[in-house]
Amino acid sequence: MNLVEQKVLDEAVIVDDHIILVDSFLNHQMDVELIFEIGKLFHDYFKEHQINRIITCEASGIGIAVVVAHYFNVPMVFAKKNKSLNLKDDLYTSKVFSYTKQSTSSFNIKKEFVNEGDRVLIIDDFLANAEATRGLIDIVNQAKASVVGIGIVIEKGFQPGGQWLRDRGYDLHSLCIIDSIKNSQIKLRNESVI
Amino acid sequence: MNLVEQKVLDEAVIVDDHIILVDSFLNHQMDVELIFEIGKLFHDYFKEHQINRIITCEASGIGIAVVVAHYFNVPMVFAKKNKSLNLKDDLYTSKVFSYTKQSTSSFNIKKEFVNEGDRVLIIDDFLANAEATRGLIDIVNQAKASVVGIGIVIEKGFQPGGQWLRDRGYDLHSLCIIDSIKNSQIKLRNESVI
Repeated sequence: MNLVEQKVLDEAVIVDDHIILVDSFLNHQMDVELIFEIGKLFHDYFKEHQINRIITCEASGIGIAVVVAHYFNVPMVFAKKNKSLNLKDDLYTSKVFSYTKQSTSSFNIKKEFVNEGDRVLIIDDFLANAEATRGLIDIVNQAKASVVGIGIVIEKGFQPGGQWLRDRGYDLHSLCIIDSIKNSQIKLRNESVI
Repeated sequence: MNLVEQKVLDEAVIVDDHIILVDSFLNHQMDVELIFEIGKLFHDYFKEHQINRIITCEASGIGIAVVVAHYFNVPMVFAKKNKSLNLKDDLYTSKVFSYTKQSTSSFNIKKEFVNEGDRVLIIDDFLANAEATRGLIDIVNQAKASVVGIGIVIEKGFQPGGQWLRDRGYDLHSLCIIDSIKNSQIKLRNESVI
């Protein structure tokens, strides 16, 4: 069992059969030692893939992706949601629906920050329906770059995003896959009920 | 001249007399080596202050604050803008107006993630009118914690935020202070025109 799985079992707060909160260590308060362990784990898994760019999206992915980028020693780019006044240039854009926020936003990356031929590792904190991941893949494809891998900290294995990505041949590596949340118990894939 | 100042002079794109873009290295694409140097510089300056928590706000501050927190070996918390469905608990909230986005949002931090007596270092990428910083100070005050320092990567010295904070006794440390942007030249405080 890795440190992320242990942390999820020890500290995740179960809201209902579909939702857990991990905001004490991952996406509101951040346990920085854990974030660096996450960076190491992704580097161990993807290090042979000649990755030259890490891509994530606002906001929770940023703190993880910057540490992953440190281990790979490559630049990180985060997609911006919606457009600020300072982001008028030529953009790659993809529409993304968030179930958590029940709203559609656009992901935007300036064209100059993803290049044709780039070997990209996509990083995010959560994977459920893979809406955000598909938005980032769309942008990488628009740039004629390659999605070499997708690194997810926590995958909700009972939602369809992970299967959708694996069926299409993406090298998806989730550090913790939750197969179910029932009767206040979190069941991890390849682990017995705790 | 530190690495941030050098990077601003070398790579910032001047839009007009008030706006520069640093999105090639700081707040869209991130130069991770620079971000770690920033973490070191803030640690060098504030290391004697018994800081036990780093606070920033979505989104650009997150990637910097997580690295700063690494050097201090303390948890980092980022204020969330507006409320997602998963953030219903008891919150400290502060209203913040963004000049860049021309809109008001609320900063929210769960009460459990800032404690009475905490010694907080506030981190952000930019300081202009200090609206975001004041929102974070407001939250720290609501929690009866102390703002021990404020670390800013780039301060626009020709806008009033920095003076406002220094006049009130805050230990504000900006790694790069821009005094003016005129005739396509960036003038840094304590540096001659380049």
